[in-house]
Amino acid sequence: MSEPKSAADLPGEAEKLDAADELAALRERFVLDDVVYLDGNSLGALPAGVPARVEDVVRRQWGELRIRSWEESGWWTAPERIGDRIAPLVGAAPGQVVVGDSTSVNVFKAVVAAVRMAGQGRDEILVDATTFPTDGYIAESAARMTGCALRPVAPDEVPTALGERTAAVLLNHVDYRTGRLHDLPALTAAVHAAGAYVVWDLCHSAGALPVGLDEHGVDLAVGCTYKYLNGGPGSPAYLYVRRDLQGRFDSPLPGWNSHAEPFGMRPGYAPAPGAVRGRVGTPDILSMLALEAALEVWDEDAVSVAAVRAKSLALTDFFLRCVGEYVPDGRVESMTPAAHAERGSQVALRCDDAGDVMKRLIEGGVVGDFRAPDVLRFGFTPLYVGFADVERAARTLARTLGRRG
Amino acid sequence: MSEPKSAADLPGEAEKLDAADELAALRERFVLDDVVYLDGNSLGALPAGVPARVEDVVRRQWGELRIRSWEESGWWTAPERIGDRIAPLVGAAPGQVVVGDSTSVNVFKAVVAAVRMAGQGRDEILVDATTFPTDGYIAESAARMTGCALRPVAPDEVPTALGERTAAVLLNHVDYRTGRLHDLPALTAAVHAAGAYVVWDLCHSAGALPVGLDEHGVDLAVGCTYKYLNGGPGSPAYLYVRRDLQGRFDSPLPGWNSHAEPFGMRPGYAPAPGAVRGRVGTPDILSMLALEAALEVWDEDAVSVAAVRAKSLALTDFFLRCVGEYVPDGRVESMTPAAHAERGSQVALRCDDAGDVMKRLIEGGVVGDFRAPDVLRFGFTPLYVGFADVERAARTLARTLGRRG
Repeated sequence: MSEPKSAADLPGEAEKLDAADELAALRERFVLDDVVYLDGNSLGALPAGVPARVEDVVRRQWGELRIRSWEESGWWTAPERIGDRIAPLVGAAPGQVVVGDSTSVNVFKAVVAAVRMAGQGRDEILVDATTFPTDGYIAESAARMTGCALRPVAPDEVPTALGERTAAVLLNHVDYRTGRLHDLPALTAAVHAAGAYVVWDLCHSAGALPVGLDEHGVDLAVGCTYKYLNGGPGSPAYLYVRRDLQGRFDSPLPGWNSHAEPFGMRPGYAPAPGAVRGRVGTPDILSMLALEAALEVWDEDAVSVAAVRAKSLALTDFFLRCVGEYVPDGRVESMTPAAHAERGSQVALRCDDAGDVMKRLIEGGVVGDFRAPDVLRFGFTPLYVGFADVERAARTLARTLGRRG
Repeated sequence: MSEPKSAADLPGEAEKLDAADELAALRERFVLDDVVYLDGNSLGALPAGVPARVEDVVRRQWGELRIRSWEESGWWTAPERIGDRIAPLVGAAPGQVVVGDSTSVNVFKAVVAAVRMAGQGRDEILVDATTFPTDGYIAESAARMTGCALRPVAPDEVPTALGERTAAVLLNHVDYRTGRLHDLPALTAAVHAAGAYVVWDLCHSAGALPVGLDEHGVDLAVGCTYKYLNGGPGSPAYLYVRRDLQGRFDSPLPGWNSHAEPFGMRPGYAPAPGAVRGRVGTPDILSMLALEAALEVWDEDAVSVAAVRAKSLALTDFFLRCVGEYVPDGRVESMTPAAHAERGSQVALRCDDAGDVMKRLIEGGVVGDFRAPDVLRFGFTPLYVGFADVERAARTLARTLGRRG
């Protein structure tokens, strides 16, 4: 087993940090075991209130009330209601977020709608070339179907790539691989200065750090709910459309749920006002109401996103420090920026035999994930990850790496 | 209370029909109470096996295994696996049906893909003008985004409306309002004779009557799973792409789940072979696995669709007869075709004060639904509706109508 390289008492420090952690009690609101779970950036842990809620939805709302639940159990209005619960977590006033469909489907809605808002004469879509691939695939389809050209650029190059032809720009707030946090306020301002519309993908930031959609004048945003929002596997995504743009939101997926009179069953389409316009088909109630229960974790005691962000940075700082102390030099290399302003809530370590290392780490009770070809990813959900977890993860990593040679 | 108009002993007949019903035991596989539930064409009743399955998915698969369940609990392959469970119910060989997204989203995929298959020179989409509205709205968007004209026609007029410009035709198998069953084999053949591609919407037929997708050479089909398939509120829809067309299925929603190497995270899109190509984003696991449990109702004892269809017709015949016997002449008028070949598994009755009548029917323990402006809809799910239910529903309807005057 590897020994610390210095005399630092990291287990002791972890204990003190945990004792001083204002969010420590939130851990009780999740179902956890003795595994150190650092994969909440892929699938959040189960909130303790979810099982009973889902059972009620299945047995009583569906099993007993059946069709009456569309009204009596609030099924019909769930997409907007739950959107309003997500809204404060991404810095949005009520009435601008709607839940439903997958992130990919929402990227399609948002990018097409952004191009249509930009109007004629603008026929280029910029997309973050370093992004999670689905955004690029979907943006390519949106470009093809709106007669635009697609131009992949690195986020840093967006300001110089913008021009008179730019219609829409699709960016990730946090890079899924490296954990790099992009400068949402500055990039949004640059896109606006060029007369274009921006779509932010918040999958890897919402629930872990402040987003400030309203404050920074973001046009459109999408995100998933199964990472830091802990909504459950494949839980529905969400779409944000800034209030003053809603009247111009022209959806490429105008399903009956987005109609001004959905039960009028009219042959002609007329879009509903507000965030409802972003709906498509019948909402997926089981998953949606599990998400609603999961979001209640944030309501009790009014957990603040600022406090979550402070703890997130403390966790990733401490992890990087423990890795520096425990892991033999040159064995791993951090891909995650050291600057707080550029760091999300994850740490990505480059490591030669990353696939095998992650397998052994998981066997050793530390769950992160592997991204080809050589990346170890560790996500830190401040709601349920503590400093002792972090120290143990780094120690186990060092032991795993030491065992190889 | 209304009295029968003839001497027919309808309660006695119902008892005999129930005693002879080979499917009667299936009722035990659902959670039912003393309500006569004739709204399974909107939301199917809860299958008895679903609650325990959902609890296992939430508590063990998500709560304990967490991220490992994508592989260990078969989450990743659920869309194809569950598609293969639906396949025999719609007359499809394995490998052609994939589950996910809403019906509206699947209509978009299918119609756009059909237009792309038809190729250049064909720029018109025909859509069933009598259809459930969302199909028309989505077809309009598909037309707009593929440079086609949209032409709404009545299904009967399709053969004469087809021409050299027709690219795709979107049709409903059973009309959601009247319960009319359209001639899928003949219409499919007519579309093919014109060199176009057909998309069938099976929402109101799958699970209630034979569809025969493979047998009749259907190109593409979509359907929901929360009606006669009892998958639960907003459970995911499915998409059928005929095997020999899969290589040409060019999705407008090419999300990462449809990639040939989804975990390669490659910047360039390369579609997967087979039905997987119809996937988009991360599948909605809770709802999807609830659906999988619901479909097990069909597996035990190998329930045949032919037997279900025979009982469905017997139920709707008996309902129409009971209504004829009990309800004062002229008070209601059936919109549902009398001919078996043109009848789905529902009966729609036109009635002046239908909204108020349905409200009182529900208070009286008979649940159907109301469709504006003047339609009472009654759906008959042969898996759990019996003949005594039917007789009671007609008797309650007669009493409700009698009470008014």
